[in-house]
Amino acid sequence: MCRPFLAAIVSAIFVALPPGLTESRAGEPEAKTFSVRRIGEIQKQDGRDVIVLDKQYQKGLLGLEQWSHVQVIWWFDKNDTPQKRAVLQVHPRGDKDNPLTGVFACRAPVRPNLIALSLCKIVSVKDNVIQVEKIDAFEGTPVLDLKPYAPGLDSASDVKVPQWARPK
Amino acid sequence: MCRPFLAAIVSAIFVALPPGLTESRAGEPEAKTFSVRRIGEIQKQDGRDVIVLDKQYQKGLLGLEQWSHVQVIWWFDKNDTPQKRAVLQVHPRGDKDNPLTGVFACRAPVRPNLIALSLCKIVSVKDNVIQVEKIDAFEGTPVLDLKPYAPGLDSASDVKVPQWARPK
Repeated sequence: MCRPFLAAIVSAIFVALPPGLTESRAGEPEAKTFSVRRIGEIQKQDGRDVIVLDKQYQKGLLGLEQWSHVQVIWWFDKNDTPQKRAVLQVHPRGDKDNPLTGVFACRAPVRPNLIALSLCKIVSVKDNVIQVEKIDAFEGTPVLDLKPYAPGLDSASDVKVPQWARPK
Repeated sequence: MCRPFLAAIVSAIFVALPPGLTESRAGEPEAKTFSVRRIGEIQKQDGRDVIVLDKQYQKGLLGLEQWSHVQVIWWFDKNDTPQKRAVLQVHPRGDKDNPLTGVFACRAPVRPNLIALSLCKIVSVKDNVIQVEKIDAFEGTPVLDLKPYAPGLDSASDVKVPQWARPK
C-alpha cells in the first residue's frame, strides 16, 4: 500500500537537477559552491610584511622573483559569518557621508564571497616566503592565491571613479 | 570490557584541533578550507560579453555604473579536479619554449584555488546585467566577486615582468 507513496517521496528527493545545484524550498536553484583552501598566511616579521606559503606550495613560486609586483588574493576571515556574507550595500569606508553603495561597487570587507585583492610590490622571494613592501591585512590572514601583475592584463587607461572614491 | 577501548577511539577521533583544521594521516594540519559560492555567470548575448548576476545579488551593483572598469573574479570551473588543483608548475601559455614556472608566477588556469581575475571595461550596468567590452571566459563560467578598479589600489609603476611575458 505505501510503496507508491514512498516511490513518490524518493523521486521528489532525487529530482533531476544539473550537477552541483540543489533546489531550495522556494523551488529556485541555490548557489553552487566551491571549496577554496588556505595556501599560506600573512605574517609581520620584525616590522616587515611577508606572505608565508605552506611548504607544500613552495614549488608554485618558481620565477616569481622575476616580477616586480604580485596580486595577493586573501580571505577576510574575520568577517566569515552568514550575517556579514549577506550584506549587499554599505556606506564605503564606514563613512555615512559616502552614498549607499553596492558591495560589488566598492572594496568593502563584507560581501557574499570574502575575497580580498591587494596589489603589492615584491621586495624578495626566498624559499616559501615573499616579502612585500606593504599589505593591508592582519597577521595570520589566510592567503588563497598569488598572481603576478602583468600590465597588459591588469592596467587600464581612461579610468573613471565615483566622486566618493577620489582623493580628498 | 570494551568501554575504555571505545572511549579511546572516540577521543582519538575528536582530538582537540583549532577550529577548521583537521589532522592528516601524517599528523600535519591540513589546509583550512572556505566555501565560495557562484553569484552569477558569464554569458554571451548577441556577440556581447555580459555578466549576469543572480537576482538575489542585484542590490550589490548599486553605483557600479559610476566606475569605468571592474575586476571580475571567476572560477576556472572546467579545471576543478584534484589533479589540476595539484599542479604547481607549468610552461606558461602551454609553450614548452617558455621556462618552467610556478603557477603563482604566471596566470595558468590550473592552480590550487581555481580563482581567475580579469580586468574589464564596463559598457553598461542594467538591473542584474553588466555588459563588459570583453572577458576571456567561456559561456556559463561561474562568477564569484566583482571589484571596481581603483587606480590608487590597483595600478603600479616601475613594473618589471620576465622575458617570456613580454610582447614579442
